[in-house]
Amino acid sequence: MQDVKSFINSNKDRLLNELIELLKIPSVSADPAYAHDVLTTADAVKQALEKAGCDTVEICETQGFPIVYGEKLVDPSLPTILVYGHYDVQPADPINLWDSPPYEPVIKKTELHPEGAIFARGACDDKGQMYMHVKALEFMVSTNQLPCNVKFMIEGEEEVGSVNLSIFVKENREKLKNDVILISDTGMISKDVPSITTGLRGLSYVEVEVTGPNRDLHSGLYGGAVANPINILTKMIASLHDKDNHITIPGFYDNVEELSTEERAEMAKAPFNLEGYQKSIGINSVYGEKGYSTNERNSIRPTLDVNGIWGGYTGEGAKTVIASKAYAKISMRLVPNQDWENITELFSKHFTSIAPEGVTVKVNPHHGGQGYVTPIDSVGYRAASKAYETTFGKTPIPQRSGGSIPIVALFEKELQSKTILMGFGLDSDAIHSPNEHFGVWNYLKGIETIPYFYKNFTEMNS
Amino acid sequence: MQDVKSFINSNKDRLLNELIELLKIPSVSADPAYAHDVLTTADAVKQALEKAGCDTVEICETQGFPIVYGEKLVDPSLPTILVYGHYDVQPADPINLWDSPPYEPVIKKTELHPEGAIFARGACDDKGQMYMHVKALEFMVSTNQLPCNVKFMIEGEEEVGSVNLSIFVKENREKLKNDVILISDTGMISKDVPSITTGLRGLSYVEVEVTGPNRDLHSGLYGGAVANPINILTKMIASLHDKDNHITIPGFYDNVEELSTEERAEMAKAPFNLEGYQKSIGINSVYGEKGYSTNERNSIRPTLDVNGIWGGYTGEGAKTVIASKAYAKISMRLVPNQDWENITELFSKHFTSIAPEGVTVKVNPHHGGQGYVTPIDSVGYRAASKAYETTFGKTPIPQRSGGSIPIVALFEKELQSKTILMGFGLDSDAIHSPNEHFGVWNYLKGIETIPYFYKNFTEMNS
Repeated sequence: MQDVKSFINSNKDRLLNELIELLKIPSVSADPAYAHDVLTTADAVKQALEKAGCDTVEICETQGFPIVYGEKLVDPSLPTILVYGHYDVQPADPINLWDSPPYEPVIKKTELHPEGAIFARGACDDKGQMYMHVKALEFMVSTNQLPCNVKFMIEGEEEVGSVNLSIFVKENREKLKNDVILISDTGMISKDVPSITTGLRGLSYVEVEVTGPNRDLHSGLYGGAVANPINILTKMIASLHDKDNHITIPGFYDNVEELSTEERAEMAKAPFNLEGYQKSIGINSVYGEKGYSTNERNSIRPTLDVNGIWGGYTGEGAKTVIASKAYAKISMRLVPNQDWENITELFSKHFTSIAPEGVTVKVNPHHGGQGYVTPIDSVGYRAASKAYETTFGKTPIPQRSGGSIPIVALFEKELQSKTILMGFGLDSDAIHSPNEHFGVWNYLKGIETIPYFYKNFTEMNS
Repeated sequence: MQDVKSFINSNKDRLLNELIELLKIPSVSADPAYAHDVLTTADAVKQALEKAGCDTVEICETQGFPIVYGEKLVDPSLPTILVYGHYDVQPADPINLWDSPPYEPVIKKTELHPEGAIFARGACDDKGQMYMHVKALEFMVSTNQLPCNVKFMIEGEEEVGSVNLSIFVKENREKLKNDVILISDTGMISKDVPSITTGLRGLSYVEVEVTGPNRDLHSGLYGGAVANPINILTKMIASLHDKDNHITIPGFYDNVEELSTEERAEMAKAPFNLEGYQKSIGINSVYGEKGYSTNERNSIRPTLDVNGIWGGYTGEGAKTVIASKAYAKISMRLVPNQDWENITELFSKHFTSIAPEGVTVKVNPHHGGQGYVTPIDSVGYRAASKAYETTFGKTPIPQRSGGSIPIVALFEKELQSKTILMGFGLDSDAIHSPNEHFGVWNYLKGIETIPYFYKNFTEMNS
């Protein structure tokens, strides 16, 4: 496969421009205002897969946004790789913090990306990383080097919990049958320290509502005499962590996998520069659960974070009001063996139980998913590792990620195959944040590396 | 003054319609978008004062919204009453909770107001109560019964802290010279239990900002490893009260006036129906500082309430983000002897000191004012009490209010005269809330009672 580099070099502008076109469509699945754009994006993905060489591409309708399914079947006796990705993106707000509009992609140079990076919502998560696979397929098909069968399943609801994808997978086990699942929706340590994600955290996402009086009250006339829902909400949320930043929900840690001293020592070998980490996000100190390192806190330990909070008067100036209601969105990242539905239930039960008299509390579960760990001795992992060795010249480091792709555990359960997480993004890419970007180098390196995975995986299976 | 009732009866529709016209102008001082409307309202008040019989009315410019000043001077040897009120209103949001648009006044009957109540922002606070004075003047002038001199000072920034009024008062001591200040910007216990407000709480209003990372972060990649500004803000706010709901700011209670057992016993005699109180605001339990009754908690005790909180993702659906910043608006109601500037400083110092490493905290003081207590043996109080006896047939109960009119303490200091708080609103009028209203009966009863105060005060001073 000597000519993948020359394919990239001679098609570089086109590879970038096609992705830029895709990034212009604001496919925000969380916000109904963008529903039409999400559908337009599904169509664009369908066309891209057809152009890249799929024999069949379908828009599979669901109760929500459709799944784009494509396949190129070479020979039933050869292995089948199922590529999963998503074409929906996170909301862009707070929009005023973007240096350029989120849906008008621009390529700008940065310290980490002297070759330039594409700035746009979805540049990395996941349009950019998903599109690497489309272009890798194009390369393999156009040069007659596709060594095995390939199936694509690109969904439009990853950012809102993949509820309809779960149903689709359960109903289409035969169609989706494969030998390995390949996903690029994670990151790597750095451009010169390639890594493969071997673990993902699970997720439980809930929204809580605290109601006090039946209307907003004047804080002078009622202040001090009635439960203020915002004060109560802050008290309730604050009580969810103890002074050592352990989570206080009864039963929360019951099934948490505790790593051995050896495993933790192994983890501690991964390169980590505390000063650089702090500098990159502008903090003067890290913060978290007592007894664990930063890398442990954001990978092997569960968390509870408020993702949004609101209530009362939030406009200009002052309003002396006691709000009738206060709200928060809270997510918990879970580790292997924690069941997200069980955790959601434990949270709801506990949160409701700590409400004082004078308020009522509602907990609305949003969505969730299980954590996932993949072994490093599988054929898939070895095929991926060897692919990185070829294109990076280094053996990649296996690494647990703090993020979640809730659907991965379900894939294993329903489709009985392992998932390989070949991510080419960087932590600094600001996914889910203003100024999300994806390095041009990373994008092209992904397109270069993926075909070697196909080659290695097929050879190792034969 | 036998004909005040017949004046009201024969002019009732006009008295209501004139107020309704004034209520149509959205004079929200807190929101720059309404600046033009605030100015239009000042003009309308000027015209109303001229029409009611003032000899001179001026629009006095300030650094902010103007003060409308009017006077009718009968004889320098007679007493002078200074009427204070405000023509600005609170913001109307949350606008979706109004049953009818806030600036399209309608008269509707309610359980407490079988004669009807005017529903509109400012109906009670303070356009309605202020306009009672304008109409009482009209009655006295038109029937040649004005027994003394009268000055009106109607401002447009009460809801945002009266900063420019303070300057105006200091610069116009001679012009504003008076023997008593009369204000209707408070309430009374009920329609059959008239009361006069003898105490107001002070106020310190601040806005706080907690900053963590320099940008919003992905809660999977960073969750658990960096201080989440929203979680931290909830912890910090929660820590401001202990388990007995005492405020934990060091020095906060140092100057709080503690009432004697006798005084508290006297207070406890005021009629109070806990069940009715809870029912009126839809709560199943009251809540507050241990060791104090509801009436004490909202009058003689200081408080700390969050009036607004926001941060992170607050839109539809879910976003797994760790916000860079979280905010809250916090107000403290103060009791006599607590100095608001001192309390603001104590708050700022304490709040900044409890911020953990990993975040920075800013405290921006908004505005504030001192508490106020007026004696019940003054000429002014006795004149007011006797006026209520005439029109209600009952001696009014002296009562401390939980609300604040920060400018009152300044009036006493700068103008050396006592303020009499003759309020005709009810707690259930929903001032500062959606569906604010003012009983037609209360409005007319105010117009009826005020002239007797003029008469009594002049006679008692002669």
